[in-house]
Amino acid sequence: MDDSTKVLQANAAFYKAFSSKDLTLMESVWLHSDSVKCIHPGWHLIVGWQDVSETWKTIFDSGGLFHAEALDEEAYVIGDVAWVICTENLTHKMRDEIVTGAAQTTNIYERVGGVWLLTHHHASPAPSQAIREDLLQ
Amino acid sequence: MDDSTKVLQANAAFYKAFSSKDLTLMESVWLHSDSVKCIHPGWHLIVGWQDVSETWKTIFDSGGLFHAEALDEEAYVIGDVAWVICTENLTHKMRDEIVTGAAQTTNIYERVGGVWLLTHHHASPAPSQAIREDLLQ
Repeated sequence: MDDSTKVLQANAAFYKAFSSKDLTLMESVWLHSDSVKCIHPGWHLIVGWQDVSETWKTIFDSGGLFHAEALDEEAYVIGDVAWVICTENLTHKMRDEIVTGAAQTTNIYERVGGVWLLTHHHASPAPSQAIREDLLQ
Repeated sequence: MDDSTKVLQANAAFYKAFSSKDLTLMESVWLHSDSVKCIHPGWHLIVGWQDVSETWKTIFDSGGLFHAEALDEEAYVIGDVAWVICTENLTHKMRDEIVTGAAQTTNIYERVGGVWLLTHHHASPAPSQAIREDLLQ
């Protein structure tokens, strides 16, 4: 398996953790370091794994997230660093409504001990929305 | 000079080009490749140097940009890849008013032929604004 495929697998695991609100899986895809950084859409910069992990717990506990997936993923690998540019399709339940929004995303991975780990996540509101019609039925 | 210092110099050149609306300097800091990507705050993803360079020309020609600078820059270097996380302080003239906004930014650089070149720029609106009081006087 080539490096790009491995990186895309790591990215898929990240979105599986995100969509299934699986904090244990989310913990396994991130580098546990004080240097990691995370920018959720519209949030301020979060620094360090401890604070980053707490934001995921907050998001998961909020109960609003219904579905998360990555579209149009492109991976670049140079040595032990990789980055994936993709669009996130995020579906939330708000009272009785299902709302879908898109986020433009940059994910940076480091290869540590042969494993690609997420070290930086930057997601920001995208100007257009990709509607998952199948989720609205 | 260590690699982090060189990367921060490259990042400083990017913001010098940005703030001075210097398209020639902007051309010199980017990798000229079909793979480069750029996300301006609130824009859709721009792909490839030709289209990316046109967005800078559009921004510079709009006449609204007054000042751009990077704050809280942190550089990470692994092999021939580096990334800089920073906050952009962007000041615009809108009619007779000066408006300052902040953007959270991820810049990824590749070392090509010994030179650090920008290959990915992702800027998104930050929740808080750092006001340059000195520019408002």
